[in-house]
Amino acid sequence: MPIDLAPDLAPVELLVCATCRAGQPTEIEGPRPGAQLGAALAELDWPAHVTVREVECLSNCDSGCSIAVRGGSERWTYVYGNFTGADDAALVHEGITKYAATADGIVPWRERPVHFRKNCIARVPPLTLPE
Amino acid sequence: MPIDLAPDLAPVELLVCATCRAGQPTEIEGPRPGAQLGAALAELDWPAHVTVREVECLSNCDSGCSIAVRGGSERWTYVYGNFTGADDAALVHEGITKYAATADGIVPWRERPVHFRKNCIARVPPLTLPE
Repeated sequence: MPIDLAPDLAPVELLVCATCRAGQPTEIEGPRPGAQLGAALAELDWPAHVTVREVECLSNCDSGCSIAVRGGSERWTYVYGNFTGADDAALVHEGITKYAATADGIVPWRERPVHFRKNCIARVPPLTLPE
Repeated sequence: MPIDLAPDLAPVELLVCATCRAGQPTEIEGPRPGAQLGAALAELDWPAHVTVREVECLSNCDSGCSIAVRGGSERWTYVYGNFTGADDAALVHEGITKYAATADGIVPWRERPVHFRKNCIARVPPLTLPE
């Protein structure tokens, strides 16, 4: 059980599209890149308030593999794409750990992994809309 | 005040990116296409459980104008893009009204406006994750 260093922060859900083929032809057998990314992420150590879940299609198939991240009523939700599979697990871990350390989900631009800067598919405002 | 035909359905928020320039050069003055779309949508009659709000950038700038729609813990959130401005208000109204009539946010594919079928940027699962 990891030590909870952020007791005041809302729980974070990292949602990994496990159905993504990342552009692979449909006749290729074996685990899909999205499922491989999800499995690799599940193996990593995360802050105690972060949960990793595999989900079905995030409808970002032109720019897969994809993740979505959210957490509580005060944080922006982000969708990131163009991951290639398990090889990107460390990169995702870095970006999401930084997200999870914020109250509003907004990581300063320069602190975001370059892939996150270049492959943000969309974001959705917090449930409690900013003024 | 519209009659509430759907008392059992959770409230729906239609979020319109009001900062979107829809690819216009930054030196063009006057209201932005996103703000014009938001204003046109605000003029329409909506089901009583639908609220239209203008929000800041949805980070879908390569495919703007953009909207996001969500509502309650049981519905999927969707982001749609590639609207051109106020001219698309009726189209957005049709698609969102259908969304608002569902409990889970999933409108059968053939019932979605063609633009919605072709310009779904991403979707995010309900807060209460499907099994």
